[in-house]
Amino acid sequence: MNAIRILGIDPGLRKTGWGVILSEGTKLSFIACGVVESEQKATLAERLRQLHDGIAGVIAAHAPGEVAVEETFVNRDPQSALKLGQARGVALVVPALAGLEVAEYAANLVKKTVVGVGHADKKQVQAMIRVLLPKAETRSADAADALAVAICHAQHRGARAMLAKYQAR
Amino acid sequence: MNAIRILGIDPGLRKTGWGVILSEGTKLSFIACGVVESEQKATLAERLRQLHDGIAGVIAAHAPGEVAVEETFVNRDPQSALKLGQARGVALVVPALAGLEVAEYAANLVKKTVVGVGHADKKQVQAMIRVLLPKAETRSADAADALAVAICHAQHRGARAMLAKYQAR
Repeated sequence: MNAIRILGIDPGLRKTGWGVILSEGTKLSFIACGVVESEQKATLAERLRQLHDGIAGVIAAHAPGEVAVEETFVNRDPQSALKLGQARGVALVVPALAGLEVAEYAANLVKKTVVGVGHADKKQVQAMIRVLLPKAETRSADAADALAVAICHAQHRGARAMLAKYQAR
Repeated sequence: MNAIRILGIDPGLRKTGWGVILSEGTKLSFIACGVVESEQKATLAERLRQLHDGIAGVIAAHAPGEVAVEETFVNRDPQSALKLGQARGVALVVPALAGLEVAEYAANLVKKTVVGVGHADKKQVQAMIRVLLPKAETRSADAADALAVAICHAQHRGARAMLAKYQAR
């Protein structure tokens, strides 16, 4: 299997985590990770522009071949869901504008893939990222979550591709 | 007061309404309106890219000076709010990327400004748009809603500018 760079994104209006890994066959390695922040004092449109520019900068710098975005489970009030949705819309549209395929994974599946259980907390995800990607700087929980989404995509992309082939028959 | 073109947007994932008016002092005139649709069969990232391209095309074609987006009241379930938020994020970020100021108005204020009451339904908004902008083609309720947001901004932008000046002191 060819090597591919995968960008994982954990969207949020205040902080959007991102992480890039290299997937070669069954081997995973850390490339980079970080957090794109928006200024809380700015207008909503301006904050979304800051997220756009940050994510576009990450794509330009690390040239991922595929992108995976966390499909956050929304059990919160509609107002919070709307807010998260706005950041998520930007996180999805930036790679699409760059011509990249964007896969989405439910937060539960991401945790199950990386930690082994679907209800793992942020600290367990961070700890597991340190094991799977020893070179990753995982001081930020948002960046660790983004790396977890990228790992999830690395594990599932083979199955997705097979399914797509099958459905296209 | 100088003439200014205002783009109003009523965001939605399936259909995003848009309308451009010319505001000169107290006079309003219709320029154009329409609906940007996304293909329901496409992936979410691709649908958001379609909305992006449609809105960017409207901005390129009609060169608005200011943009106003409807701040939808979300009384629905978190899942619908997340979906609407994603479309809204794109509707807000496209004009911001074009360097345009984006104002937001609550749906109630838009209806109150255009119809006179905050709880007006879509048909009342459409009827009032026909009175205020006789040349507008208002077959689409989404386009009529977008024109209503643009009218609301035309009415309130003077007060907003004065307030901003006052707050900057």
